[in-house]
Amino acid sequence: MSIGYSEQRLDATAKVTGRSRFTSDLIMPGTRVARYLRSKIAHGRITNIDTSGAKALPGVEAVFTFEDIPKTPFATAGHAYSLDPKGRDVEDRLLLTDYVRYHGDEIAIVVATDHLIAEQALGLIKVKYDEYPPLLNHQQAMAEQAPILHQQTSNKVAEHQYQFGNPDEAMHHADTTVSGCFQTQMVQHCHLENQIAMAYMDDTDHIVITSSTQIPHICRRIIAQALSWEISRIRVVKPTVGGGFGNKQDVVLEPMVAFLTWKLGGIPVMIDLDREESMLSTRIRHPFNVDIKCGVNRDGTLKALTLDVVSNTGAYASHGHSIAKAAGSKLPPLYPKAAVRYKAMTHYSNLPAAGAMRGYGSPQIVFAVESIMEEAARNIGMDSVEFRLRNVAQQGDMNPLTDKHITSCGIRECLIKGRERIGWDKKKEDYRHSNNPSYNKRRGLGVACFSYGNGTYPAGVEIAGARMVLNQDGRITVQVGATEIGQGSDTAIAQMAAEHLGVPFSAVHVVSAQDTDVTPFDPGSFASRQTYVISKPVSEAARELREKILGYAAEMLNCPVSELTLRDGIVVAETPESQTLTLKELAMDAYYHKQRGHQLTADVSCKTTTNASSFGCTFVDVEVDIELCQTSILNIINVHDAGRIINPILAEGQVHGGIAMGLSGAMGEELLVNPDTGIIYNNNLLDYKIATMPDMPDIGSDFVETTEPTSAYGAKSIGEPPLLSVAPAIRNAILDATDVAINRLPMSPKALFNAFSEAHLIQEAN
Amino acid sequence: MSIGYSEQRLDATAKVTGRSRFTSDLIMPGTRVARYLRSKIAHGRITNIDTSGAKALPGVEAVFTFEDIPKTPFATAGHAYSLDPKGRDVEDRLLLTDYVRYHGDEIAIVVATDHLIAEQALGLIKVKYDEYPPLLNHQQAMAEQAPILHQQTSNKVAEHQYQFGNPDEAMHHADTTVSGCFQTQMVQHCHLENQIAMAYMDDTDHIVITSSTQIPHICRRIIAQALSWEISRIRVVKPTVGGGFGNKQDVVLEPMVAFLTWKLGGIPVMIDLDREESMLSTRIRHPFNVDIKCGVNRDGTLKALTLDVVSNTGAYASHGHSIAKAAGSKLPPLYPKAAVRYKAMTHYSNLPAAGAMRGYGSPQIVFAVESIMEEAARNIGMDSVEFRLRNVAQQGDMNPLTDKHITSCGIRECLIKGRERIGWDKKKEDYRHSNNPSYNKRRGLGVACFSYGNGTYPAGVEIAGARMVLNQDGRITVQVGATEIGQGSDTAIAQMAAEHLGVPFSAVHVVSAQDTDVTPFDPGSFASRQTYVISKPVSEAARELREKILGYAAEMLNCPVSELTLRDGIVVAETPESQTLTLKELAMDAYYHKQRGHQLTADVSCKTTTNASSFGCTFVDVEVDIELCQTSILNIINVHDAGRIINPILAEGQVHGGIAMGLSGAMGEELLVNPDTGIIYNNNLLDYKIATMPDMPDIGSDFVETTEPTSAYGAKSIGEPPLLSVAPAIRNAILDATDVAINRLPMSPKALFNAFSEAHLIQEAN
Repeated sequence: MSIGYSEQRLDATAKVTGRSRFTSDLIMPGTRVARYLRSKIAHGRITNIDTSGAKALPGVEAVFTFEDIPKTPFATAGHAYSLDPKGRDVEDRLLLTDYVRYHGDEIAIVVATDHLIAEQALGLIKVKYDEYPPLLNHQQAMAEQAPILHQQTSNKVAEHQYQFGNPDEAMHHADTTVSGCFQTQMVQHCHLENQIAMAYMDDTDHIVITSSTQIPHICRRIIAQALSWEISRIRVVKPTVGGGFGNKQDVVLEPMVAFLTWKLGGIPVMIDLDREESMLSTRIRHPFNVDIKCGVNRDGTLKALTLDVVSNTGAYASHGHSIAKAAGSKLPPLYPKAAVRYKAMTHYSNLPAAGAMRGYGSPQIVFAVESIMEEAARNIGMDSVEFRLRNVAQQGDMNPLTDKHITSCGIRECLIKGRERIGWDKKKEDYRHSNNPSYNKRRGLGVACFSYGNGTYPAGVEIAGARMVLNQDGRITVQVGATEIGQGSDTAIAQMAAEHLGVPFSAVHVVSAQDTDVTPFDPGSFASRQTYVISKPVSEAARELREKILGYAAEMLNCPVSELTLRDGIVVAETPESQTLTLKELAMDAYYHKQRGHQLTADVSCKTTTNASSFGCTFVDVEVDIELCQTSILNIINVHDAGRIINPILAEGQVHGGIAMGLSGAMGEELLVNPDTGIIYNNNLLDYKIATMPDMPDIGSDFVETTEPTSAYGAKSIGEPPLLSVAPAIRNAILDATDVAINRLPMSPKALFNAFSEAHLIQEAN
Repeated sequence: MSIGYSEQRLDATAKVTGRSRFTSDLIMPGTRVARYLRSKIAHGRITNIDTSGAKALPGVEAVFTFEDIPKTPFATAGHAYSLDPKGRDVEDRLLLTDYVRYHGDEIAIVVATDHLIAEQALGLIKVKYDEYPPLLNHQQAMAEQAPILHQQTSNKVAEHQYQFGNPDEAMHHADTTVSGCFQTQMVQHCHLENQIAMAYMDDTDHIVITSSTQIPHICRRIIAQALSWEISRIRVVKPTVGGGFGNKQDVVLEPMVAFLTWKLGGIPVMIDLDREESMLSTRIRHPFNVDIKCGVNRDGTLKALTLDVVSNTGAYASHGHSIAKAAGSKLPPLYPKAAVRYKAMTHYSNLPAAGAMRGYGSPQIVFAVESIMEEAARNIGMDSVEFRLRNVAQQGDMNPLTDKHITSCGIRECLIKGRERIGWDKKKEDYRHSNNPSYNKRRGLGVACFSYGNGTYPAGVEIAGARMVLNQDGRITVQVGATEIGQGSDTAIAQMAAEHLGVPFSAVHVVSAQDTDVTPFDPGSFASRQTYVISKPVSEAARELREKILGYAAEMLNCPVSELTLRDGIVVAETPESQTLTLKELAMDAYYHKQRGHQLTADVSCKTTTNASSFGCTFVDVEVDIELCQTSILNIINVHDAGRIINPILAEGQVHGGIAMGLSGAMGEELLVNPDTGIIYNNNLLDYKIATMPDMPDIGSDFVETTEPTSAYGAKSIGEPPLLSVAPAIRNAILDATDVAINRLPMSPKALFNAFSEAHLIQEAN
């Protein structure tokens, strides 16, 4: 009985003592260092590249340019492969390029005996460019005369739309309509551990890559594609990972290190990005422009919602239009009764490439939707929470996008609980009196809600596997493809295994490193999928191993299996003699009896063909200092319906992290770009205003536990959701406090200054 | 169809290009270096040890002595655990000792930041001893007043005897009897790669050990015992290994590196023995003293055989008496009709500890037995080959020791083939004429034969496992506990898997590194067991995976399974449409179809409760230079009944290696000891006379293929056997050439000089 308890993380001691070993701690003796030469311009074509000086430098082992690389284009996005060509990611990448598409593009790579020599060699490469004006936004990229950045007919990556009901008619008949335009900025994941990968060739001429990745099995496939190798000749190992947030759901360095070791006779080669490279040249969050309109009746009924989304994927598609598509699909389960049209387009530009980032497009869409909901509630003079309670989904509602019932839904209860926890009604009353327009500091409350998925089905295949072994000491080793990247998935999986096996949590060991040669297949850590999708193979493998254990106990005790149970790691026979057998006693016999027994294992792989919806909301209480244009978070709390909570303290940890990340993205973070040159100004942690501990308020977290029937343990996603509704809740609270709507992120002091000036709350400085 | 073909070794390219990565190539950054302080005397007790100088040296992180270590005694011998306490190895070891039992005993260990500092620190430790006279041989060790080296009542480790028939009566009634005393020397394995092990603690507070070992799973158990840890909290990884020959079937360094990392908070620590340490302080081959007698009739019938064996295990038991016991058990299947008494005793002494070495006691016994057979044949005037042909086993004979039939036996055919290949009859005739006593160079022919086992059953449990995975590209990954240590087992296993799956050999990848967290359980590489024992789980897993593949193909092709076959990696439907499906097509569907399929795997563990006998013989043609006391091998050939040959070129490789090792041990190798002090003189490759390439004759190898019914592919052991009969064949050839019997190994020029002097073939020098 481990589910529902706050078991200590399996890696707790190693993490707090700094003993965890990441990829950089596992570098082999003699590993060569590779470093990219990156373009100093945002858009142009290389007319000449002279590497002779670099090649002549002692300690330099090789320099490669576009001329030297395989010419098979590949996609870097970490999705499970699609049998349907239309379901595949855009293959627009090569290992190096001679056509520069953003500031930081990879144009050459140096391999040297150490980092310093590699750096020195980079300085010796002479590059000449034909430079072009950068295309940075929708208007520039989609202009008729715009140069086409990839081999397509325009800079449009893709577009799509869905609709149910008749939103135009519903909008027409609604008592009132409100509309707005919402914009989100470029932010970067800023995981603690930068991308790093090492590769060498093993005794069987396979390429082995150790990498800080969220997706070892997908990584393997993409490397194979990029090099035109057989997939099983590639082996990817994932050690402890220091965060990813979707950035390591792209295959960025691995094909290159694999290529380098291959070309250099199998010697180990590593690429260890520094922070500046990681921020510039891995992935960022897609900036969205959302034109949104909604129609409501005076009674608070949401009748219609239309969204027109433009997503800027930057220089390369990466996850491309999947982001805008996935984000749209998470909306209907929240407001399932409204008529909706969702229209989205993704285009290329000369910005850094955007990819997956926690929330996968939803933060952008939720910002627009929950802001427009606020506008609608204000328009009809209804309380924001009341308005949402009238319109959100209930269990049994039909998700109009999938035509399937919503199998569990606690969003109403979340809203009610959050309203109570933040003291909504009393504070609303208080602030009505205290928010005198002559006061500099004004207070306000905000709310926003969301729904989210559990994995990628039916857009993608959902497959997971688990293997379990009974050890000689009676403890259980569990192998899963599900990838621990710091979120605590191993601990949750150990709890699940213990539950169905009938052993204590402490008796379960989860093999944390994935190794594609031996790890059960699983696409990896993304889409808040793991706890949900892994529940099926883990529960089945646990049941299978339990049956084998009881079967062997029956052989040892010479009694029918039906009389045996396994509890707390002890087999108990409900016979008159009440025999017992510890798992260690049983295991020692199974391993070492000369005539009977064998190693007891269970090995299960299976697919999930459901996708539950998680729900939740943010309540926030802010004080805005008008003159300083500064927003203080007095109180912030998320309430989640994440189904049954496997491990409360780990779930709370996810909420804390999600709120912190959401708050930071809402209030300060933005990658800044020179609008004339496309040069990125602030790809470093000094100039990029990420929130740090002093910026953090106390963070509240609560749960409404439902039991999701399509999940073996009743659990639903909690990885990405906590981030989603933070920004709109704060935006709505600032609006509540100041009557000023901030419709572009981040809501930094600078943005508030501009908005407050425009609203004449403050005088513009001369 | 891969069985029986000389497929190229899977690691061939990596090995010949030097790209293979051994343990020392995998050392983690920041790994500390540990070095033993070894006793400079052979026998004594430490009265004082002062480590303060070493501890004060900058760069020294710790110094441990006997005071600091766990006091749980353990056995280092690499046997699968026995449920029967009487079947367990002698637990006479601690990590360090204050009672010095041999020259080189481990009395302290230093951990430092690098090798040089560690060396320097060793020089700063001051040790005072009470020194005792060393006990080096049977007489000294078993003398009534001898000090007892371990906590037992005497220095006897164990003794046993078996008997069948009435050898005394048979001896009495035999036409004639011959007897002799045969002695074998201390030799060392001298594998290319010295012992090395590294340990660290992982994120889950488990200890991970990377080690050059033959027995990763056993290693794990012994470390756990030595440290009193749970076995599943220990993880052992075996990378490429540069030979072991039984020496790495002892757990020598692993418990110590595990202890060090544990005590030092999980930091990585390595011990990398140098050649001098490896030769002195790992294991050696047990020197045997064999008093042997046989009774024969004039017609050539072997009537009786009695052996009285004394085995000197040195300072620690290690495999102890198991060696003498196992050696005795391999004799009855060769001469099953004779009445036999085999009596053996093993004692401690102050020599380096003896352990497992290729042949596991049999080389010593075969030397005695096949020498005495030669004496018997000479005594009755019968041709040596003829004499053996009269007495060796035939298929269907009863093994008197196990009361089981010999299920395959080609020894007669081996002898006949070898006789022909060496040109026995003609040369015998030629040499009779040419061997004039006045000639300095004389020629002779020798023969010797042997039988050997396939694994340890019924002395030990025989368990093995295999897991197979169908990859996306249609290739198969195979995981086995069977341990590749250079002998080529991975390649043989790939052939077996390909055979029963119905795929090409090139489509099979065997995961060569064992990792006890994920590798199917298997005791490891020893007792020539692997090809025999692994055949069962490999064939069963292959059949299971094949069935799953065909079942899935039936689903895809919508036809009955019965109409499908898998040949050369292609599923063929015997339907009117003759549909085909490549394994890649099938696998891609199984992995990526959104609704159906899963990863196809098979995971089999099982036990073997049979033990077949392999047979073989050596024929050798020598020329002895009497004056130079030098023996030249003109021709040497082994003929083996190793059942069905899985891979002829790999089998031949084993024969070449075995003959080379046998020849070297027969002709020159000996660890020399000062009889007064017990100091070892020549634990280095300059003074220890191991044969090198110029010493090697052309080596012949041939096979008599039988089909062993208890082996899934009909194969029997070939790992240790080629060594066994080399020394007695050469001894018999020298005897044939010179009429001088050399009954002690090695038959070095020095030994020949003494023997020829005694026989007055040469004049002793003044």
